[in-house]
Amino acid sequence: MSTAKYETIGQYLLKRLHEAGVGHIFGIPGDYVLGFYDLLIKSPIRHIGTTREDTAAFAADGYARCRGLGAVAVTYGVGALNTVNAIAGAYAESSPVIVISGAPGVSEQRNDPLIHHRFGPFTAQREIFERICCASVVLNDPVIAFRQIDHAIAAARRYCKPVYIEIPRDIVTREGYPMPTSAIEPFTSDDTALSESVAETLEMLEKAVSPIVIAGVELHRRGLQGALTELIERSGLPIAATLTGKSVMAERHPAYLGIYEGAMSSENVRYTVEQSDLLLMLGMTLNEIDTGIYTAKLDPHAMVRAAGNEVVISAHRYPRVALADFVAALTREVKPRADEMGLLTSCQPEVVDFPETGRPITTERLSARLNQALSPDMIVVCDVGDCLFAAIDLRVHQPTEFLASGFYTTMGFAVPAALGAQVARPDRRALILVGDGAFQMTGTELSTQARLGLNPIVVVFNNSGYSTERCLLEGPFNDIAPWRFERLGEVFGPLMGYDANTEQAFEGALTCALNNQTMPSLINVHLSPDDASSAMKRLTDHLKTKVTGKH
Amino acid sequence: MSTAKYETIGQYLLKRLHEAGVGHIFGIPGDYVLGFYDLLIKSPIRHIGTTREDTAAFAADGYARCRGLGAVAVTYGVGALNTVNAIAGAYAESSPVIVISGAPGVSEQRNDPLIHHRFGPFTAQREIFERICCASVVLNDPVIAFRQIDHAIAAARRYCKPVYIEIPRDIVTREGYPMPTSAIEPFTSDDTALSESVAETLEMLEKAVSPIVIAGVELHRRGLQGALTELIERSGLPIAATLTGKSVMAERHPAYLGIYEGAMSSENVRYTVEQSDLLLMLGMTLNEIDTGIYTAKLDPHAMVRAAGNEVVISAHRYPRVALADFVAALTREVKPRADEMGLLTSCQPEVVDFPETGRPITTERLSARLNQALSPDMIVVCDVGDCLFAAIDLRVHQPTEFLASGFYTTMGFAVPAALGAQVARPDRRALILVGDGAFQMTGTELSTQARLGLNPIVVVFNNSGYSTERCLLEGPFNDIAPWRFERLGEVFGPLMGYDANTEQAFEGALTCALNNQTMPSLINVHLSPDDASSAMKRLTDHLKTKVTGKH
Repeated sequence: MSTAKYETIGQYLLKRLHEAGVGHIFGIPGDYVLGFYDLLIKSPIRHIGTTREDTAAFAADGYARCRGLGAVAVTYGVGALNTVNAIAGAYAESSPVIVISGAPGVSEQRNDPLIHHRFGPFTAQREIFERICCASVVLNDPVIAFRQIDHAIAAARRYCKPVYIEIPRDIVTREGYPMPTSAIEPFTSDDTALSESVAETLEMLEKAVSPIVIAGVELHRRGLQGALTELIERSGLPIAATLTGKSVMAERHPAYLGIYEGAMSSENVRYTVEQSDLLLMLGMTLNEIDTGIYTAKLDPHAMVRAAGNEVVISAHRYPRVALADFVAALTREVKPRADEMGLLTSCQPEVVDFPETGRPITTERLSARLNQALSPDMIVVCDVGDCLFAAIDLRVHQPTEFLASGFYTTMGFAVPAALGAQVARPDRRALILVGDGAFQMTGTELSTQARLGLNPIVVVFNNSGYSTERCLLEGPFNDIAPWRFERLGEVFGPLMGYDANTEQAFEGALTCALNNQTMPSLINVHLSPDDASSAMKRLTDHLKTKVTGKH
Repeated sequence: MSTAKYETIGQYLLKRLHEAGVGHIFGIPGDYVLGFYDLLIKSPIRHIGTTREDTAAFAADGYARCRGLGAVAVTYGVGALNTVNAIAGAYAESSPVIVISGAPGVSEQRNDPLIHHRFGPFTAQREIFERICCASVVLNDPVIAFRQIDHAIAAARRYCKPVYIEIPRDIVTREGYPMPTSAIEPFTSDDTALSESVAETLEMLEKAVSPIVIAGVELHRRGLQGALTELIERSGLPIAATLTGKSVMAERHPAYLGIYEGAMSSENVRYTVEQSDLLLMLGMTLNEIDTGIYTAKLDPHAMVRAAGNEVVISAHRYPRVALADFVAALTREVKPRADEMGLLTSCQPEVVDFPETGRPITTERLSARLNQALSPDMIVVCDVGDCLFAAIDLRVHQPTEFLASGFYTTMGFAVPAALGAQVARPDRRALILVGDGAFQMTGTELSTQARLGLNPIVVVFNNSGYSTERCLLEGPFNDIAPWRFERLGEVFGPLMGYDANTEQAFEGALTCALNNQTMPSLINVHLSPDDASSAMKRLTDHLKTKVTGKH
């Protein structure tokens, strides 16, 4: 590697990020990070300014999911602390975001002064980020700074989690000390554990009558979408995905069944998965969402689960088996099953007769229409609430064309994450699904999409308040102020807005939006407050018992 | 006190908050906090819904500054973590905000499940808030929960800092165990230290030729505005205030000189303070902002400083002296100075000839005009950036009519804090001063003011970007998307908007806004990007040397 003489620590950080695939850094300047920004705009990495720091972090998360690594650069205190929720979300969702925070200079900190943006001991910010990052470093010693940077970036990639890099402002232009960069060992599988786990899995597969693959989010985070498709096509196994793993497999692939999430699944998927005599769970975490609030009925003795660098079969574990190695070995050695493919129902979305004249819109028919509108160049970015449950039935064309905060479920994710996704993949157009409550949180970030000439289509599922909550407990706290979302273009732009109360109005708006390739479009879809996707009805019936304590 | 039998822990928390003066709780519901919301709406405390959680926390901060205690109630993870920056600000600025976070039930947490909104161990959220709160409790044991609640509320009041109360959802409706509530000892001064420090101060005052009081923020946070006025009126001493302490004294009082902040002060105040042979500093923290980025020239040997429960005179300290006791004792015993009052320049704002036909607006003349428009029923809530420096010269009529994030300096404070202030003090009208960058962060919270029928006047100091940064280092990262702020009423309302490029246009808009008592008004004031208040010019010249490392 090149370690040019007289390289500063700021320059080295930028160089290593760029080498790791970071082409853009999101964020807002502030005096403690200005020196770094000065280097940033002179580097090959492009700065993307946002309106707030939390949205910058969501954008970096969306970017990381598309590119394998994202980054946000903010100032100390007021900047960094605004990203805490979004970074905790990236941690929970396993998205490798590098948080670069400026800080008061090492020399400034020496006498412990009460300087602006300070909120406690100078160590407090790192201590907060340690709880939501897999590694955190403070670059206050130029001698080891290069090594710290290497380790932090390596940790983000290895664990697919955020890392925190704090750079005091008087360190940015200090010369670093070159060190070897090759010694950070990549994770390697234990050969014996790998071959034994593969052999046992193959043996079980051969005996099984109705085996099925369930694909989880880790396949996405480790970039194994292609490897998965190869395994499926070679083995002839049918496949379902979890909600957080949605779109690790192209959803119009003939082997693809749909989303499995316990009682919330469609009947066809639920039946196929739960009657299976062998579940091959790849990269799946047994979290609450993916198990349909623990309604999943899966036989632990008919299960092979590879995730988190281990393979678990029935009651025994093979530690130190990388998911990539396991999938690759299975693909090499699996015997094709000729029988299965033909048995599957077609994965093409149901054709609906849309629009019907004068018919008010329902979530179900809206989803069906959107399903037909999806094209291979679209990436669906989905917020929390009923739009997420409605999206279960969408069938995207290509892998990684669906992004959501599916497990952490933080509202306000979609609009800024879509910004990051479109910056990362300029060949994709974002279809943003977002509720009215979530849009009020971060929707004005669309201003940045408009400014950059991006062309997302925003569909606001406007059901007049926090409807997911309404199903659990009705109360005036679920009401929100009505916004005429479609008029946002009056405030910033260019942005086209549409209001849709009926299917016909929606159809007209959607057609215009699809044709308008040069700016964001927003369709404010008025749904009845008591309308809901069927998955949401099933979910909230279940959650209700927990809130009220009644079972 | 009444501890009704069968009182639940949620009910007790609400009761104690109400007894402590909390009439409103800000926040957004979520399933982990829904049970508490259910009790909240049945209690005498009113819920104020906001569009985001960070703005709810800012609103609670503004409320706390007006009422002595504020509260925000949010859900676990996605809700609470969105408040981190605002709560860190409340900590830095000494504002007693109670953070109530819902959480997964104790029984739900038992098997360490991967449930939604989770981002780490269930203890991680408390660990984060421990760094930005003066006390933090998790109510997971019904037997001690009442006592924990009492302690947390008492800590917030004693230290004027935020506290964190986490309430697992299955605890909300659990019956608590009544305990004595009287044993939490209030802070008491050491009698000897008090009398000796007062005697020494009085002796110095008698000898001094040109003594002066500098009033700091702690007087505000301890509710000593009235006590201060009494001291000033009885003693005949002149008084200056710090920027963070701005409005602890009615600024049109004849004894009031203005804001002292080192090199940034107006010439008159700077000269009067720095030539004084005895500075009586009451409730003043020697932070960077209040010392004008450490440009204050104050003789430490001619200084009596009472703050943080101690009195420091020259090089010795009297510990355990409460500020309230010290001010009260001084007031009782001080000998009036007949000579001073008459010497002071009048504190009435300069009368400017405004508007001049066709004249573009400048920050300086805008401030002067706003100064004339101020009335005794107005509370000025100010954001960060040049509007904060411009506000130095505003003279509010009554104590506590100026709120800002003066030390922590977090952008986006003003609009939501003004919401809190107006809810706390319905007899006051908010005048919100905010930059264009800060408004893009949290300005849409005005939606809530509109919904509640509040009537703030928002003056957007629109200088096309992050101008404070521009003065330090120019670069494309200081540009932001242009917003037609005045058209926000198209999106939500009722809200009247005005666009002002000239003094005449501003005058017309201001007149309309002052007359419109029933809804928010917003005036988008277009300033030249290189226009700045003189205080800002002095500040940025100084900061520049730190960013570039050149002195």
